[in-house]
Amino acid sequence: MNTGYQILDAERIPPLIAGLDRVRTRPEDWRVREVGDGNLNLVFLVDGPAGSVCLKQALPYVRVAGPGWPMSPERAHFENAYFRSVAPHVGKLIPAIYHYDPNLHFTIMERLSPHIILRQGLIAGRRYPNAARDIGEYIARACFFTSDLACPFERKLDGVALFAGNKPLIRITVDLIFAEPYFMADRNRHTSPQLDEAAAELRRDAALKVRAARFGQKFLTEAQALVHGDLHSGSVMVTDVDTRVIDPEFAFYGPIGFDLGAFFGNLLLSSYSQFGYETAGDRSAQRGWILDQVKIFWTAFRIRFLALWAEHSAGDAFPNAMFSAPTDAAALESARAAFMDTLFQDMLGFGACKMIRRILGFAHVLDFDGIANPDVRADCERAALGMAAALLRHPERFKSIDDVTEAVPRLQPRPP
Amino acid sequence: MNTGYQILDAERIPPLIAGLDRVRTRPEDWRVREVGDGNLNLVFLVDGPAGSVCLKQALPYVRVAGPGWPMSPERAHFENAYFRSVAPHVGKLIPAIYHYDPNLHFTIMERLSPHIILRQGLIAGRRYPNAARDIGEYIARACFFTSDLACPFERKLDGVALFAGNKPLIRITVDLIFAEPYFMADRNRHTSPQLDEAAAELRRDAALKVRAARFGQKFLTEAQALVHGDLHSGSVMVTDVDTRVIDPEFAFYGPIGFDLGAFFGNLLLSSYSQFGYETAGDRSAQRGWILDQVKIFWTAFRIRFLALWAEHSAGDAFPNAMFSAPTDAAALESARAAFMDTLFQDMLGFGACKMIRRILGFAHVLDFDGIANPDVRADCERAALGMAAALLRHPERFKSIDDVTEAVPRLQPRPP
Repeated sequence: MNTGYQILDAERIPPLIAGLDRVRTRPEDWRVREVGDGNLNLVFLVDGPAGSVCLKQALPYVRVAGPGWPMSPERAHFENAYFRSVAPHVGKLIPAIYHYDPNLHFTIMERLSPHIILRQGLIAGRRYPNAARDIGEYIARACFFTSDLACPFERKLDGVALFAGNKPLIRITVDLIFAEPYFMADRNRHTSPQLDEAAAELRRDAALKVRAARFGQKFLTEAQALVHGDLHSGSVMVTDVDTRVIDPEFAFYGPIGFDLGAFFGNLLLSSYSQFGYETAGDRSAQRGWILDQVKIFWTAFRIRFLALWAEHSAGDAFPNAMFSAPTDAAALESARAAFMDTLFQDMLGFGACKMIRRILGFAHVLDFDGIANPDVRADCERAALGMAAALLRHPERFKSIDDVTEAVPRLQPRPP
Repeated sequence: MNTGYQILDAERIPPLIAGLDRVRTRPEDWRVREVGDGNLNLVFLVDGPAGSVCLKQALPYVRVAGPGWPMSPERAHFENAYFRSVAPHVGKLIPAIYHYDPNLHFTIMERLSPHIILRQGLIAGRRYPNAARDIGEYIARACFFTSDLACPFERKLDGVALFAGNKPLIRITVDLIFAEPYFMADRNRHTSPQLDEAAAELRRDAALKVRAARFGQKFLTEAQALVHGDLHSGSVMVTDVDTRVIDPEFAFYGPIGFDLGAFFGNLLLSSYSQFGYETAGDRSAQRGWILDQVKIFWTAFRIRFLALWAEHSAGDAFPNAMFSAPTDAAALESARAAFMDTLFQDMLGFGACKMIRRILGFAHVLDFDGIANPDVRADCERAALGMAAALLRHPERFKSIDDVTEAVPRLQPRPP
């Protein structure tokens, strides 16, 4: 850890940021409160008469586990590097970053208001008409422009070398997503006893485990682009019209399908969790809307990625000089479509892994945890687990996004 | 470039190595001669009454092109790092390394004697009964132990970060193998006019170019293991019983199939070139022997890699903890076989790319260049090009190594 690191609290923040242009007022006018509800960090909102900012500090341990699980605050460095890398390409889909302190590992950024976390909005039964399309666009832009399709490989290798240092966070992904849910690991938990048998059955399913392991291997070996690394609905802040991606501390060069799968899988989890909130009114329309968003998300990604590839191809993969004849156009278009099909399959597989880990692994999601009745919760989780297993075990059944959205209603929680 | 770099000559070498234990004699007894015949480096043999060593210095330019094509001598650093990484795993299949000088970028290593370059032996019509099996074993060991199957991903990422610095050499591969042969690039050459039409036809074949580009993309994105990066028959030294791999300055973390394809593709080139040497006697038995070596090479690789995976699995890909039940064994075995099938297909694709670049690209091979009659040479090259095109365009025809070795005799140069 760097010398001089200390955990911040509300009192220490005003003098620290006194020099910043963005908060032009006297220190005594600042109101600072800690609002972090994630797994890893402190988050302070700093309000003054003339404006407000958000300050995020990486703790030297996993917040959700406590100091007994140390975790280098260096991750803030990678978060910052990620934001800097994608900022030129994603426009206003990330917060503005004002300052990064490499010793105290905090970032001062735009305070997003009246944004809320997309996951919480979906749990509340709200709709965000732009969110799915925006995130599809976001992944297309962030990943295309950091891939070998857009830039010389030398630039990508500089990034690969930099983010290879983000090992502690990658270790979390490797263990918690691709290994532990599939055996009786100490940190696992599930809704018990209701899901005991489902958990045991999944852990006995050798063919499914092999598929999950294959995606784990892909995660470790396929450096396609700079990925966010944790792009679920808790890493997206929304208003009715605005969408922002936050919390990229898991960033590294990996498979594009990993980011796609994070958002896709969490939309499916949200869809399955809706049954758990029907005590406050029917959610069938909301479920249908969420499945529409799955389709909108993938379609937006696909269209934007293909458009970028057609317009901004300047990298060493599929080099322009090889395909300059008019007669090359059709074959190149097929190749691009085939690449999108591969990303689609990766999205389904990584998405399924992400769904499974949220039901049988260490870190769960509020979508399910917020369902008070454990029997109802277990029914939702079991159905989601069934869908995830189908995605992993039977990729041949899911050739298009419609195949997915049509399968979800067939795999539903049992009627109450 | 580091301060203090200078190009060595025979006179400067004795004082430089005076302190080395391995050459225990007076300076005046040393005989130093430059014998390098590769594309990049100076190679000195240093002989004394009590022993001899080999000194290899990286030049600050591409030797075969001259000072007009500068090339950082830093590559010696990566060669050294590669040798250090694989040495614990490959036993006597590499030369012993005695000393590396990071300023002058030279390495002092075991002088291999009476070894010759495998390519030259094959051109001379000689046979090396262990070479193919040894190289199959070598790739299995070097790649398995540096992959996520054998070691925690953290160790691999350290290597990935280190070898990400080897950009100038990777640039050569990217341009000369995966791009330039497929369009009218300035540095290309081919046997002309005999191959003009074949070259034009290949460059018009959009579907073939797409397949080649896909392998180029795989090369850039698939960090499976530490690969040698240039493992053709010119990077292998042999005697009747001994085999050594040399010249790994192109090393980086990439697809295992890239090393497999280099050796595989160059065996096929050797096979096709044999027709060009029949003025000195029939080579049909030698052609058959070379095709046997193709099979022996792949089989040795496959058997050893699977055995290592079964015995030494300790990495984050396919983690042991996920597959500890006896009921997991069959599915895991299928997954391993499926992975080998993928490597097989990669070998064919990368091998085909390597064949094409040696016929239509910048750097050719002595196997063909040594054929004095340009019509005969062109016939050999055209047949090899046809085989490479078939491998790239019709992977479905080549499910096994027998499918490959049976196809070669059907695609032969026209009879004289």
